[in-house]
Amino acid sequence: MNTLPSALSGDLRQVAWQMIRAALEAVEPAAAVKNYFDSRPDLVSQIKTTPGQLIVVGAGKAGAPMAEAIEEIFGDQITTGHVIVKYGYVSEKSKIENPRPKGQSKIHIVEAGHPVPDEAGLRAAQEIVSLLQETGPDDTIICLISGGGSALLTLPAEPLTLSDLQAATTALLAAGATINQVNTLRKHLSAVKGGRLAQIAAPASVYALILSDVVGDPLEVIASGPTVPDPTTFADAWAIVEQFQLQRTLPEAVIRRLRAGLAAEVSDTPKPGDLIFERVHNIIIGSNRLAAQAAVKAAQQAGFEARLLTTFLEGEAREVGKVIAALAKGLARDEGPLPRPACLVLGGETTVTLQGHGRGGRNQEMALAAALALAGWSNLLITCFGTDGSDGPTDAAGAFADGQTVGRAQAIGLAPVEYLQRNDAYNFFAALDDLILTGPTNTNVNDLTFILAW
Amino acid sequence: MNTLPSALSGDLRQVAWQMIRAALEAVEPAAAVKNYFDSRPDLVSQIKTTPGQLIVVGAGKAGAPMAEAIEEIFGDQITTGHVIVKYGYVSEKSKIENPRPKGQSKIHIVEAGHPVPDEAGLRAAQEIVSLLQETGPDDTIICLISGGGSALLTLPAEPLTLSDLQAATTALLAAGATINQVNTLRKHLSAVKGGRLAQIAAPASVYALILSDVVGDPLEVIASGPTVPDPTTFADAWAIVEQFQLQRTLPEAVIRRLRAGLAAEVSDTPKPGDLIFERVHNIIIGSNRLAAQAAVKAAQQAGFEARLLTTFLEGEAREVGKVIAALAKGLARDEGPLPRPACLVLGGETTVTLQGHGRGGRNQEMALAAALALAGWSNLLITCFGTDGSDGPTDAAGAFADGQTVGRAQAIGLAPVEYLQRNDAYNFFAALDDLILTGPTNTNVNDLTFILAW
Repeated sequence: MNTLPSALSGDLRQVAWQMIRAALEAVEPAAAVKNYFDSRPDLVSQIKTTPGQLIVVGAGKAGAPMAEAIEEIFGDQITTGHVIVKYGYVSEKSKIENPRPKGQSKIHIVEAGHPVPDEAGLRAAQEIVSLLQETGPDDTIICLISGGGSALLTLPAEPLTLSDLQAATTALLAAGATINQVNTLRKHLSAVKGGRLAQIAAPASVYALILSDVVGDPLEVIASGPTVPDPTTFADAWAIVEQFQLQRTLPEAVIRRLRAGLAAEVSDTPKPGDLIFERVHNIIIGSNRLAAQAAVKAAQQAGFEARLLTTFLEGEAREVGKVIAALAKGLARDEGPLPRPACLVLGGETTVTLQGHGRGGRNQEMALAAALALAGWSNLLITCFGTDGSDGPTDAAGAFADGQTVGRAQAIGLAPVEYLQRNDAYNFFAALDDLILTGPTNTNVNDLTFILAW
Repeated sequence: MNTLPSALSGDLRQVAWQMIRAALEAVEPAAAVKNYFDSRPDLVSQIKTTPGQLIVVGAGKAGAPMAEAIEEIFGDQITTGHVIVKYGYVSEKSKIENPRPKGQSKIHIVEAGHPVPDEAGLRAAQEIVSLLQETGPDDTIICLISGGGSALLTLPAEPLTLSDLQAATTALLAAGATINQVNTLRKHLSAVKGGRLAQIAAPASVYALILSDVVGDPLEVIASGPTVPDPTTFADAWAIVEQFQLQRTLPEAVIRRLRAGLAAEVSDTPKPGDLIFERVHNIIIGSNRLAAQAAVKAAQQAGFEARLLTTFLEGEAREVGKVIAALAKGLARDEGPLPRPACLVLGGETTVTLQGHGRGGRNQEMALAAALALAGWSNLLITCFGTDGSDGPTDAAGAFADGQTVGRAQAIGLAPVEYLQRNDAYNFFAALDDLILTGPTNTNVNDLTFILAW
């Protein structure tokens, strides 16, 4: 048995905070861009000495700080640029902290609708397409992709309209189609998704810098893969329409488009192996995995044996929390995974099936379930948080849980099980001062869970 | 990427079967007894040369093979013995395979009621108490404890009756008491639980050999801890009665017993530190952890990097299955836990909330959920099974799941999600020939899950 100073639980929290900070710094959008180019000085000088244009395009909530980093690195070299962000995401704050010389900014940050695309987004997407259509083989395109990019970079294939696309999506979801099926159809109704943006940019060199908000980092899924080969075909899209018998439900223009595709009257999305991708580079510059690895490193620097277990965590938050507690007990009992002091890191995104009307988020709920399973255990700390700084509809990123959480709650008259039952983890942890408050982080690479054992 | 022979999935199953066999062999009741004494030759010769009696008592489903192993080791040295097993658990099969010379068996195997105790059990428990009351400081008691021991070794404290105990248990559960609270009360109404059996045996030496069927191996919980100090008191028991306001609901004899305990008119259960435990040795000879460690070793011998993660796995089976799949993906993507070929082992016991009317068990349901989450992934195998050989009300111990399970099912017209929804994993895996069939194993140390990644 360990005999430990009573300050230990606080010490574990200090380590957890070091890990949180390291994880968030690794995927802060501007830092992620800079880290990537820092690791590729060859590429930086190649771009800086190219005789052609340097055009910056992109879409996503993190577009503004990513664009700022590009301006910092390439400055006057940039010919022009258009990056689409969500309304309110122009990043006034980061402008103040990292002021750019007025009048020198070459990249236009355009605000548009999210999650529902709007006309402003359409106009901006059209602008991006126009820019890319004029490029030649000496030109370089930097494409900045982050969470929300799919809605923000929306351009229906001619002659479809935004409302055609929306009607098709609604009909598919109502019929019970999976998100993968919806995406297959969307790619075949778009002028930019499913690799078509790269097709437009060819034969220019394309560097797509991607901040991934999708578990597992599937390139063709993130922002609907505008620069990524599309393995799906018009035949696949049509099979989905037939499976759900939507031939008469979908807008006529959609059906016409799909039939034209089937008849090869319009070209299919570019496929894996297509020559146009020879000069396209899709690079994940920020992801759950990168954040998790930074956290693992921070734990190691604090003297812990640390290991990343997975970045694919999923499931109902309150049940996943029990498994997290089980892993913590395995560490506490020295069952085998790692010698103590030890740390396991898991990433991913769980879900919550609402049962009550409390306040909370998936990370706080997972922490509460873990606290219940760990009641009475010592020298353990569970940390669950969302990297965007906002867990569910709350201002907290997540919460800390340990073997004393339940006892401390009961001592001030709180019934933990009832808080869990009514999805009220936020008020539970707020009363204990165990919320993790980071404020908005301007980035999103899903959630992280740390298990620390002394 | 790995390129692998198509026989690989079969190869992973071969490794899984080696692990299953190794795990079951490690906790086979007779083997577990022999392994323990093999590791303690000093103790064997000490017992064999003691001038006193050697008395064998015990209770639990695995009592018969455990008693046989004791006879094999100590033979004529045994003075007498009484071991209570469930009806039908006299182990005809093992008698045929390991015949004992007729007429030489000193240990009486007595059958009794389980899970509801009966008069046969009461008589046998009384017999055991009588045997132990007559022992002296030179005598040695071997006490064989296994799953089911709590119901099988039942003896109400005088003057309570079996029906008093049953009425009290029923009333507590109906009022919403936790299993821990029920056990606290039970120990204070019993003549043998909560350390009282050891108290009766004192001053003899007691070796309690315990096959644990409780997650985490808490000695005071397994079979209600007849040879283990009881940290709970009559005051605790009475507080529970008051919490649920059962003063008028419980049988009058029960209330009188508790009040007598409160007034110290009857002695409390023996407490940690009590002198009577100086000569009592509680030894876990078989547990989930031992089985899991044997499985880890078998995987290592097959060339896999293998690690035990936890023996505390719990949660809703279909959600835990998703986490298991997430851990498998972490291995497949080389995220950090172990280099491939790799194996993670988890032990514990999940639960199933019934939604439909199909056939299945928690292990099969966990495997089906994992299969859904792994669809399309390669070179992975999930193995989920119960060590007693019978998962839920089925003749299967569990099932295998991998990235091809869903595709193979769909190819023969099965809809995996529907099978999961109606709790029908048994029929799903039966149709695919992916059930794990071991037959009854005569032992129970909860469940094991293996994750193998090539």
